[in-house]
Amino acid sequence: MSRVAFIGLGVMGFPMAGHLARAGRAVTVYNRTAAKRERWLALHSGAGAATPATAAAGADFVFSCVGNDDDLRAVTLGPTGAFSGMKPGSIFVDHSTTSAAVARELSVAAAAQGIAFLDAPVSGGQAGAENGTLSCMLGGEPAAFATLEPVLAAYARTARLMGPVGAGQLTKMVNQTCIAGLLQGLAEGLSFAQKAGLDPATVLAVIGKGAAQSWQMDNRGQSMCEGRFDFGFAVDLMRKDLGIVLDEARRNGARLPVTALVDQCYAALQAAGRGRADTSSLIELLK
Amino acid sequence: MSRVAFIGLGVMGFPMAGHLARAGRAVTVYNRTAAKRERWLALHSGAGAATPATAAAGADFVFSCVGNDDDLRAVTLGPTGAFSGMKPGSIFVDHSTTSAAVARELSVAAAAQGIAFLDAPVSGGQAGAENGTLSCMLGGEPAAFATLEPVLAAYARTARLMGPVGAGQLTKMVNQTCIAGLLQGLAEGLSFAQKAGLDPATVLAVIGKGAAQSWQMDNRGQSMCEGRFDFGFAVDLMRKDLGIVLDEARRNGARLPVTALVDQCYAALQAAGRGRADTSSLIELLK
Repeated sequence: MSRVAFIGLGVMGFPMAGHLARAGRAVTVYNRTAAKRERWLALHSGAGAATPATAAAGADFVFSCVGNDDDLRAVTLGPTGAFSGMKPGSIFVDHSTTSAAVARELSVAAAAQGIAFLDAPVSGGQAGAENGTLSCMLGGEPAAFATLEPVLAAYARTARLMGPVGAGQLTKMVNQTCIAGLLQGLAEGLSFAQKAGLDPATVLAVIGKGAAQSWQMDNRGQSMCEGRFDFGFAVDLMRKDLGIVLDEARRNGARLPVTALVDQCYAALQAAGRGRADTSSLIELLK
Repeated sequence: MSRVAFIGLGVMGFPMAGHLARAGRAVTVYNRTAAKRERWLALHSGAGAATPATAAAGADFVFSCVGNDDDLRAVTLGPTGAFSGMKPGSIFVDHSTTSAAVARELSVAAAAQGIAFLDAPVSGGQAGAENGTLSCMLGGEPAAFATLEPVLAAYARTARLMGPVGAGQLTKMVNQTCIAGLLQGLAEGLSFAQKAGLDPATVLAVIGKGAAQSWQMDNRGQSMCEGRFDFGFAVDLMRKDLGIVLDEARRNGARLPVTALVDQCYAALQAAGRGRADTSSLIELLK
């Protein structure tokens, strides 16, 4: 039975760490605010730690799921960071959505201590984390990926190694780019339907099986028409992700005119105090 | 057994008229260029006519599937137009994608002669027409729709009355609007993947089941990455449809920033001589 540590018990990390415990791993958890750690420990068998370093001590696998590049540096580097507590031959797996650059930077720092680093952002959202049906896209060494794969099965329905370190993050960026333009197109279409006096539910029923179909249409079309946005994936998080995408695009030369425009639409939603609404709230700007 | 006429034997109308003949209807066909009419008659039982008026004479249902608003006026109005040959109580069904305005205009002209008019644009493309699995969105009177429905079943898997005359066209506009933004988002995402050095097929496999999924991703993602665009729905046709959408949006006040931008991208493809390529060729502008 392998020993694992989990750093970051947010809406994603909390249930992911729970799946590891239920799969029989010896889990030690760390969270920046101790209250969440205590809540997790009240519901699961496992141990708590006061720093990432002590959580990671002796672990075969250390997982993180935190906010942004700086949050990730804070829990990995320095005397209280996870890397300082990890043993040679162990594997660090980051489930946060970050830049590819920070993944490469931390991979170098990890390698200096004999630790393998895999970037491993996920898609599937809170429901995917709770149901253990996440999709995981990874970057790093094939040997480390092969060792990790059976452990990841606790909460990932699919896990694919996309290339060297950073490739998982780059794949997540593709995912978010596809979603941005798609959601704005859907918002414009449904807004047009409303202004044209059509019944949105009937429109969705008739166009939802053809060339306009999408997961977003299936899962957000109706709630967009009803103006419900108090669930799902927050505008603030999407804005963070699109910032990473547009920054990377400056480097690799990708041209993303609609993604850049949709990023500005999300900025308008944030300015209107709607940063916590679901990303499908783009339609609110078209009223 | 009802008598029907079919006007316009293009890539859509040709197989649709064939399905009506195979369903046991007595079909009379008209096409602007006689060669296509002769080709149809060589393959099906039915009759040919030299004008829309003579094709429509005595028919219970007259169908059209032509290019644009002016083409539709040309086959319906005036001494050789279908309306002049039709009997009171018969039904005219237009499968073209047109403005809602021309549908309302022709509905008034038809009503003056006791003819019911239904606008009935379709989605599903050439394959849907050939396989008889089209999706049909209609506008007009419920009584005429009810009479038509069993006839339509020859080639439409679904047929929905969306509201008064014009509502079918407005629904098709929603469909095309959703597709425009969606395809541009997909093009930007896949272009980013290529510039990032990722393997597009693996990227599609890992993101294609989640929140970025779409019919277009499933059916066009791979061919977009391979640069294949010699099939599908032509840029020229999409440009026509988006012109109708943007024109209607001026009237109903819908704001369509991304749709307008994608329309301009299609204009760029046309200017580059790529008007006959599939709409997914938006990715070619991002190379």
